[in-house]
Amino acid sequence: MEHMTYHQANRERYLDGFKAFLRIPSISTSPAHAGDVRRAAEFVAQDLAASGMEHVGLIEQAGRHPLVYADWLGAAGKPTLLLYGHYDVQPPEPLEEWLSPPFEPEVRNENIYARGACDDKGQTYILLKALEGLLRTTTRLPVNVRVLMEGEEEVGGEHIGQFVARHPERLAADAALICDTEMFAPGLPTICTGLRGIVYGELLVTGARTDLHSGVYGGAAPNPIQAIAEILASLKDRDGRIRIAGFYDRVRPPTPEERAAWARLPFDEAEFLEKEVGASCLVGPAEVPVLERLWAQPTLEVHGVRGGFTGEGAKTVIPAKALAKLSMRLVADQDPVEATTQLQAAIARVSPKGVKAEFQPIHSAAPSMMDPANRFVKAAAEALTSVFGRETVYIRSGGSIPIAGLFQKHLGIPSVLMGFGLPDDNLHAPNEKFHLPNFFNGIIVVNRYLELLG
Amino acid sequence: MEHMTYHQANRERYLDGFKAFLRIPSISTSPAHAGDVRRAAEFVAQDLAASGMEHVGLIEQAGRHPLVYADWLGAAGKPTLLLYGHYDVQPPEPLEEWLSPPFEPEVRNENIYARGACDDKGQTYILLKALEGLLRTTTRLPVNVRVLMEGEEEVGGEHIGQFVARHPERLAADAALICDTEMFAPGLPTICTGLRGIVYGELLVTGARTDLHSGVYGGAAPNPIQAIAEILASLKDRDGRIRIAGFYDRVRPPTPEERAAWARLPFDEAEFLEKEVGASCLVGPAEVPVLERLWAQPTLEVHGVRGGFTGEGAKTVIPAKALAKLSMRLVADQDPVEATTQLQAAIARVSPKGVKAEFQPIHSAAPSMMDPANRFVKAAAEALTSVFGRETVYIRSGGSIPIAGLFQKHLGIPSVLMGFGLPDDNLHAPNEKFHLPNFFNGIIVVNRYLELLG
Repeated sequence: MEHMTYHQANRERYLDGFKAFLRIPSISTSPAHAGDVRRAAEFVAQDLAASGMEHVGLIEQAGRHPLVYADWLGAAGKPTLLLYGHYDVQPPEPLEEWLSPPFEPEVRNENIYARGACDDKGQTYILLKALEGLLRTTTRLPVNVRVLMEGEEEVGGEHIGQFVARHPERLAADAALICDTEMFAPGLPTICTGLRGIVYGELLVTGARTDLHSGVYGGAAPNPIQAIAEILASLKDRDGRIRIAGFYDRVRPPTPEERAAWARLPFDEAEFLEKEVGASCLVGPAEVPVLERLWAQPTLEVHGVRGGFTGEGAKTVIPAKALAKLSMRLVADQDPVEATTQLQAAIARVSPKGVKAEFQPIHSAAPSMMDPANRFVKAAAEALTSVFGRETVYIRSGGSIPIAGLFQKHLGIPSVLMGFGLPDDNLHAPNEKFHLPNFFNGIIVVNRYLELLG
Repeated sequence: MEHMTYHQANRERYLDGFKAFLRIPSISTSPAHAGDVRRAAEFVAQDLAASGMEHVGLIEQAGRHPLVYADWLGAAGKPTLLLYGHYDVQPPEPLEEWLSPPFEPEVRNENIYARGACDDKGQTYILLKALEGLLRTTTRLPVNVRVLMEGEEEVGGEHIGQFVARHPERLAADAALICDTEMFAPGLPTICTGLRGIVYGELLVTGARTDLHSGVYGGAAPNPIQAIAEILASLKDRDGRIRIAGFYDRVRPPTPEERAAWARLPFDEAEFLEKEVGASCLVGPAEVPVLERLWAQPTLEVHGVRGGFTGEGAKTVIPAKALAKLSMRLVADQDPVEATTQLQAAIARVSPKGVKAEFQPIHSAAPSMMDPANRFVKAAAEALTSVFGRETVYIRSGGSIPIAGLFQKHLGIPSVLMGFGLPDDNLHAPNEKFHLPNFFNGIIVVNRYLELLG
């Protein structure tokens, strides 16, 4: 247990290092911050090298943010674990809503506030410090470890996907550990066993050749925004069920055990509505429990409509074209390619006359499911329970972590999703925070997890 | 006929004056051009004064573009005609699509190209030159004339409406002549006897308290854009008939004579679809002729939707709110206030759960109808026919000219809509033009019209 003593003795230094990591404005979507993104990659690489990891290096992506790779493969006969995190962050805007500057980390009430505090620098740094504690105290790790960190997670992660597909041999492992999710409730150790997939794309509808005056042509000319409205209204019923032929055919319902476990979670629908959503009521089929709607049911969502006039005041235009941003969230065992084809066929079927409507996908990710009986999952639950002192719960997430599906597809390995964020950590929003007890406990959990696997 | 000789002799000077008028970039929506708008008002006032009109002056609107007023009331026992035009223009953008600069008028193939050439400087200048020809040759007019020109027509004309409502005594007349419409076809003298009214407003739909992540909340949180889609799809059937209770109750169908006259107009539906609209087909109820859909049927049109994400790429947001710009075009005898109430009730009825939807009107105008048997209309037809050598046709317009309704409401007078624009004059678009033969003929027509009335 000398590494536990080491972790304890280094708490202040860990916090200082974490703050230094947070001070780097590694905003991956901003060309102006490309240098900062690289600094963050170098920060991660230097930390791994200082701890004693081997083969540390940046994997350059032509013109894009690098991957950070490291490994330690000296545990002969032991399994190999692939650790994933990302060192890039979302833009901090709107700046005026931050109580402290987004890149000047500040501790208030056991929370550290900064962009990336939770997503994902805090959780990435947990991995780094767990490795440091083990390597500095015993000069070895209990299992073989590969580390792969990316700097483009917040902009789609396209290049890591290409790397994983092209170089599976460089990432050979038995399982992956992804620290980029959250605990279901404060103090409640949580493993995520399912992620929704996604197909995100654009529905382009064209009508007249040019924008037309609604006085002169209104009543005879097709209106692409009206067409989008009719298409969207046709594709869902009033309870939110999706009316796309074959769409639900592959949807795997949760097992009775899973449903029972979700029903036992500390979830209060009224509180969820009031505190998190803040609308007059929730939507979706009443007979499906809310968590099941979020985790085990697919969605079709419109994110925006572009076209026509949206400035102040009035302009009586019938736009020549309009574009809607749509996504489908998919659940096991739906397939993104099949779902895209189904959506395209449904759009063709319901498009009103006078317009041409086409859906083009921009990106997609398969849904993923982890078996709670898998030994890597069970060890993670044991490590979590031993540190937090409560039974680990299994949840799913309605979001998508494409890398989990890519590890499954190209490396043939499951991903353990062990998260230390909290539901109110303000990911992607002003005043993002990370709960410091979770930060320190997370380091102990990952350390113990590696020991249990070894 | 000495004024006809005068007009003939002054063609080049008229054209030079018209060009000088067109060179003033009187873009009323642009604060940067406020000085130019005033220069255009002064140009009109100076022209009227030079011709011999009396009581010429600018009527100042607090902080806004002035009205130009003038009169000549020396024709005792004769009727009084109120001449209306506007000296402001639309913005010229997109500039790169103009073949010659929008404020450097250029004559090509008997057309003069410039912003405002047709709408409405050309037609306003026709009125000025008709007055000049009569006053310079006979020092008097055959009827009493009041002139009222505005500089805010392209930004809603709110202030002229207030002035008309507050000072009807200063505008007392027997009829108004509005030159701001078009001929149905080249060489075909045309009077417009009906205008659609309008209610333009915003449909604001609110759902959750803040924007939400569609992965985390999709399936249970309401989506205001989807709600707008469902509302819009519910308010119209697939043939474009409006499903608002009571909406059609007051719609006055065209008379059999009007329908027969419209059927005789040189209108080719296939050509209209191909040349003007450029979509795969027209929309609207098949049993209603196209011109009747445009002129005698009300519409409900969406002009834009604001809310959510519409940038490049992908963002998985469920917006907290979304706003649609909507208009209803109304026909006689619909009432804007009643139609607004009907729309609001219909929206309340079809709004999906979880959202709040409210329609707020921004501006409105009543539909207007002129009786072809009215003596001011008949004299206009006679003047037109005598100059163009063809029988004058009576059409309606699907657009709205609110001032016609305001003259009816506050002054109790009909408006004669005699227009010299052509269907391909590119109003509000790049390469706006005015056909010079129509410009010169228009001057003769208005001159003759005043003589006929006298």
